[in-house]
Amino acid sequence: MTAPTKPPADSLAAVGEKGLLRLLTGRWKNDPAQVPVGVGDDCAVLRGQGKEHFLIFKTDAVVEGVHFTPQAPPALSGRKALARALSDLAAMGARPLAAVITLGVPADASVRRLRAIYRGLETLANKYRVPLVGGETTRAAQLFLNVALLGECRGYRPLLRSGARAGDSIFVTGRLGATQKRHHLIFEPRLAEGEWLARRKLATALMDLSDGLGADLPRLAEASRLGFQIEPKAIPRKRGATVEAACNDGEDYELLFTVSPAQTKTLKKKWPFATPLHCIGVMRLRGRVSSKPPFAHGFDHFKQR
Amino acid sequence: MTAPTKPPADSLAAVGEKGLLRLLTGRWKNDPAQVPVGVGDDCAVLRGQGKEHFLIFKTDAVVEGVHFTPQAPPALSGRKALARALSDLAAMGARPLAAVITLGVPADASVRRLRAIYRGLETLANKYRVPLVGGETTRAAQLFLNVALLGECRGYRPLLRSGARAGDSIFVTGRLGATQKRHHLIFEPRLAEGEWLARRKLATALMDLSDGLGADLPRLAEASRLGFQIEPKAIPRKRGATVEAACNDGEDYELLFTVSPAQTKTLKKKWPFATPLHCIGVMRLRGRVSSKPPFAHGFDHFKQR
Repeated sequence: MTAPTKPPADSLAAVGEKGLLRLLTGRWKNDPAQVPVGVGDDCAVLRGQGKEHFLIFKTDAVVEGVHFTPQAPPALSGRKALARALSDLAAMGARPLAAVITLGVPADASVRRLRAIYRGLETLANKYRVPLVGGETTRAAQLFLNVALLGECRGYRPLLRSGARAGDSIFVTGRLGATQKRHHLIFEPRLAEGEWLARRKLATALMDLSDGLGADLPRLAEASRLGFQIEPKAIPRKRGATVEAACNDGEDYELLFTVSPAQTKTLKKKWPFATPLHCIGVMRLRGRVSSKPPFAHGFDHFKQR
Repeated sequence: MTAPTKPPADSLAAVGEKGLLRLLTGRWKNDPAQVPVGVGDDCAVLRGQGKEHFLIFKTDAVVEGVHFTPQAPPALSGRKALARALSDLAAMGARPLAAVITLGVPADASVRRLRAIYRGLETLANKYRVPLVGGETTRAAQLFLNVALLGECRGYRPLLRSGARAGDSIFVTGRLGATQKRHHLIFEPRLAEGEWLARRKLATALMDLSDGLGADLPRLAEASRLGFQIEPKAIPRKRGATVEAACNDGEDYELLFTVSPAQTKTLKKKWPFATPLHCIGVMRLRGRVSSKPPFAHGFDHFKQR
């Protein structure tokens, strides 16, 4: 729909989505006393009032033709817009406080369809008790929905990608691989699981899987300046998914986290959720083992389409 | 670019931009103890910690071909994205705490141009000391930038559209009318002026002028359940702008506010800014005077293009 046969020399195809983000935001510097975490984790972290109060801030957009097809049920398209952003809040262990929505909409759009999109979004907001507090609309050639979320960690610290230590076990929730075509529209953000891990200080690092284990685990390792060793057979897969698919399909929206050796037993014993929990490997010092996963690179919007 | 010759019966052209927003967000209800102001003002207001602490939350997008042309200087297009959202924060009297940016970008976009867009945004962020704390990019057919802003009012209350009382004087900052083609790209958000009005409790109601006085003043009056009376000759105009233009061009990004009779002298005497300040009329009880302004309806994205 958008890719010409020959993009300009300085085009996105060359740098990729994460490369572009680094190019655009790499210079952003903040006072760590005010902004403990800026660009580079699942969400930004601002210091709140008092020692263990943090505000968590996130923006994310879904675009028709990219994140959902025009034929997708409108309610599920709206649902996905909020669910993705909530998954990023879950990836810090935060509790949502409020959401504001921007709708970009073609002038010939059907109002009935837009209402259905918003109903899907509202249903999910009600389920996870996310106050919808503001909205804007603008004309656009292509329908998009931007969700900005404010969350908080009150009485505990958010979990970052950078907290893993060598020897920590690597866990994932749920099962990976996109065997169910609608999973990306109907997944449940792991908010309760993320908050539980952060409140109990049971994980050392946490993120959500959006681009696939094969792309996301190297990011967690990079942020923690570590390598990792994976037992491919231990990766929990959806029925019918190969290990390759489980690593590269993307859009799992499960949690990926690391746990210190002293805590793994407690974690397994106390885990109060129906959500499956699997240990898939261990964090290693860099260079001790290959950090190259036995799988490809996950999903990149700009490179792969 | 987007309007077909005959839109569907339930199309946006019929309901307009504000009508659509009402249709989509009209059911959103929040606990006023947590969310004193939801949809319907310039920003949402969340209760912070303590009695006079409020968090102010805003989302806004600019779209290429709608809010700026592809030929506009890229740095000014990026600047506008942030400036518009800051103007909304100014319209509550809030101080910015942090911004997160979503970029929607065609796969054939020039990385150099995107960097210039971000430099413009960063320059304005530095000027107004707005920490840029997070960003996302996504593929899109048309370039867009969504800015989500978190702000606060600490030690004072935000100013709403709904606080005007009959007999209050109506003031605007600056001069109105789009005689300068680039004004919408280079305007200064009235952050200091808005915060000053709110901290000193000198205004009873406040908003910013984005769609033109002719569209925006009726909104303030509606929110305050009042009518108004304007002295057209008193409307401060840019050089060469007619009264009509000053009321309907839109994109002034000046402040519109009301002041109780007891405070107008103090306001004029204490106003510490170089920004012009003009009294243009008075708020009246509904029905006492026509609330119809002597001018048209301002700007609507969906209706007017």
